[in-house]
Amino acid sequence: MKKNLVTIILINLFTAGLSFCQVTDPILAISKPAETNAPGAEYPRLDSEKRAYFRVNAPNAQKVQIDCGRTYDLVKGENGFWTVTTDPLVAGFHYYALIIDGFAFADPSSESFFGVGRMYSGIEVPEDGVDYYKPKNVPHGAVRSTYYFSTIANKYRRCFVYTPPDYDKNITARYPVLYLQHGMGEDERGWSVQGKMNFIMDNLIAEGKAKPMIVVMDNGGGNAFNIRPRTAAPAGNPAQPGAAPAGPRPGGGMGMMSGGVNFAEILIKETIPFIDANFRTLSDRENRAMAGLSMGGMQTIQITLANLDKFAYIGGFSGGPRFAQNDDIDKVYNGVFADPAAFNKKVKVFFLSIGSAEGMRTKETCDAFKKAGINCIYFESPGTAHEWLTWRRSLNEFAPLLFK
Amino acid sequence: MKKNLVTIILINLFTAGLSFCQVTDPILAISKPAETNAPGAEYPRLDSEKRAYFRVNAPNAQKVQIDCGRTYDLVKGENGFWTVTTDPLVAGFHYYALIIDGFAFADPSSESFFGVGRMYSGIEVPEDGVDYYKPKNVPHGAVRSTYYFSTIANKYRRCFVYTPPDYDKNITARYPVLYLQHGMGEDERGWSVQGKMNFIMDNLIAEGKAKPMIVVMDNGGGNAFNIRPRTAAPAGNPAQPGAAPAGPRPGGGMGMMSGGVNFAEILIKETIPFIDANFRTLSDRENRAMAGLSMGGMQTIQITLANLDKFAYIGGFSGGPRFAQNDDIDKVYNGVFADPAAFNKKVKVFFLSIGSAEGMRTKETCDAFKKAGINCIYFESPGTAHEWLTWRRSLNEFAPLLFK
Repeated sequence: MKKNLVTIILINLFTAGLSFCQVTDPILAISKPAETNAPGAEYPRLDSEKRAYFRVNAPNAQKVQIDCGRTYDLVKGENGFWTVTTDPLVAGFHYYALIIDGFAFADPSSESFFGVGRMYSGIEVPEDGVDYYKPKNVPHGAVRSTYYFSTIANKYRRCFVYTPPDYDKNITARYPVLYLQHGMGEDERGWSVQGKMNFIMDNLIAEGKAKPMIVVMDNGGGNAFNIRPRTAAPAGNPAQPGAAPAGPRPGGGMGMMSGGVNFAEILIKETIPFIDANFRTLSDRENRAMAGLSMGGMQTIQITLANLDKFAYIGGFSGGPRFAQNDDIDKVYNGVFADPAAFNKKVKVFFLSIGSAEGMRTKETCDAFKKAGINCIYFESPGTAHEWLTWRRSLNEFAPLLFK
Repeated sequence: MKKNLVTIILINLFTAGLSFCQVTDPILAISKPAETNAPGAEYPRLDSEKRAYFRVNAPNAQKVQIDCGRTYDLVKGENGFWTVTTDPLVAGFHYYALIIDGFAFADPSSESFFGVGRMYSGIEVPEDGVDYYKPKNVPHGAVRSTYYFSTIANKYRRCFVYTPPDYDKNITARYPVLYLQHGMGEDERGWSVQGKMNFIMDNLIAEGKAKPMIVVMDNGGGNAFNIRPRTAAPAGNPAQPGAAPAGPRPGGGMGMMSGGVNFAEILIKETIPFIDANFRTLSDRENRAMAGLSMGGMQTIQITLANLDKFAYIGGFSGGPRFAQNDDIDKVYNGVFADPAAFNKKVKVFFLSIGSAEGMRTKETCDAFKKAGINCIYFESPGTAHEWLTWRRSLNEFAPLLFK
């Protein structure tokens, strides 16, 4: 082991030396490593105009590409390094893939995120002057990884639970609960990792904008659609504002089933009872909300509307009610909207949101609800597509409306 | 979006159809997907003799390899799929990399783990008749992701905290604390993800073998040594029993510094006070233990021996005291071992462990301590190398000795 240690130290010193030599690279002066990079990785880098610089050491590759919605071909230099500079990217979190000789995978220079039915690269592009999803000097809640046995699925299921900052201090207080679901291709990790929901909640609670609440993030299924080996990367997020999303996208489907098991049944019969038994919850319907993004939004609509004895707050982010334009709102979802006054009394918040670059008719849907007398709250995330910044902003708008 | 949904559904049906056709593959009959696979991924697979079967769809690649300590070349079939069958693997968790045309990265078919200063593939090889690190029908604790601001590092630091199953029920009970550190190239995620420490603790506590305790897993640094782009995979774990580890390994170094900041100082001045202020701890030295693997073991020895007013239990797993064979035990570590009776009275447990395949002289070190009158407890993990099964077993042996 001692010999190995010496080797490592020498390598480190040598690497440090190399870094010094590279400081002459003009890109280093105008850009800095993305916050999503692996520790110490110098690339990918971002400049003040949100251009990303990629640099990949693959001397034996025939072709190197980056897919961040749009596919970029990298150019090989004499030193075996392939490089490319992207056009300015939209702020927020974007999935991307590195493609070598046609094989797409997670770039080892970045952190990986479970996003397309498997682990993929992500790059966080800073948003100027915005800090609601950043850690601040406020009391912090915790995200707990918990396990419960599902007799329906016949296996242990992992479930993440955010407890608010005062949960461990006010040891007799009970809290309302928001069930918050991921999209297709993602899993129960999405909201606390890509979504930074813990910082969003910490900050809202600290500012008195949201009530302290428990947030439960369970696995809603739909995360195994990508089992075929792929040779092209998923287009999770268009790299350019307004670009059209292409192909199957994270969060772009129904996926009620997880390994042949119905998530709605698990949530109602197992997850909620587990949470109410193991956390200090307020367990009546007036203190229970559900929201989700994309597939999770569709699940939310389907589950809450069929269980209005259990939920009083509903949020669909980039995924909401599904019916044809000429359907009669009175008739859809088993007639739950037929008596608008009764619905509005029961459902305290009915919230639908979308990214403006998604090109979806969510505003029109919300307007149709309003015309039918349903109190629909609409939020549009400016300039963002079917991606996490849309959903961070949606949560930041939705959570303050809850339990008031 | 509706058009996308239809596309996804059709693709899913088509994929399902393909799967049916492939059932004739004889490998499918004698093997099953590794539990570390991405959801729904059919490969890599493992058979009853612990051989791994890899299958990679890379029709345009010139060369495809797997590195799981030993490097295997895959063979290209007519259909563009590359395949290989490994020799029988040692049970437990192994890092591995997929290499295409010389570029090493995490296999998208498997989950990724932060293991070599970046995200890498892992494969869990089942261990016959062993379930101490599996979820069982016992009360479960939770692993909490928490954040604290470090004035020393001038940034927020993430810290994982395991709370025992009864922590939320016995709301006035206070608990002893084990500080448990990862190895080089890993981070605060290692113990709860690769190490499955939560299940180990749940099971030990349920059987009455270990006292309920809080376990804190902080970032000990040393996780940015691998910042040079690599063209060969790190040899995290020899694939065969007794094979010699090659090159820099996860957990193979000192790495006291994290971004130029001393972890020992952060732990003593910031992490411990944060934990004692925010969890119901017993905060005297008799109720505080520290252990770590590899680099984390060396950190443990260095930190605890310099702070015996704060720690009464010490564990070094595949990483312990470092001194030359002809050094006088009386003199090393500022003479802390000079009075064996005083040391034994103060340090309730002094535990050193190693994997038998590591080829390290840990037993001799422990014997030397014993000869000098120091109560050294030695544990050897049979058949395992510098890898997680050694460390799961070490924790399973060490935790029952604590706080008794």
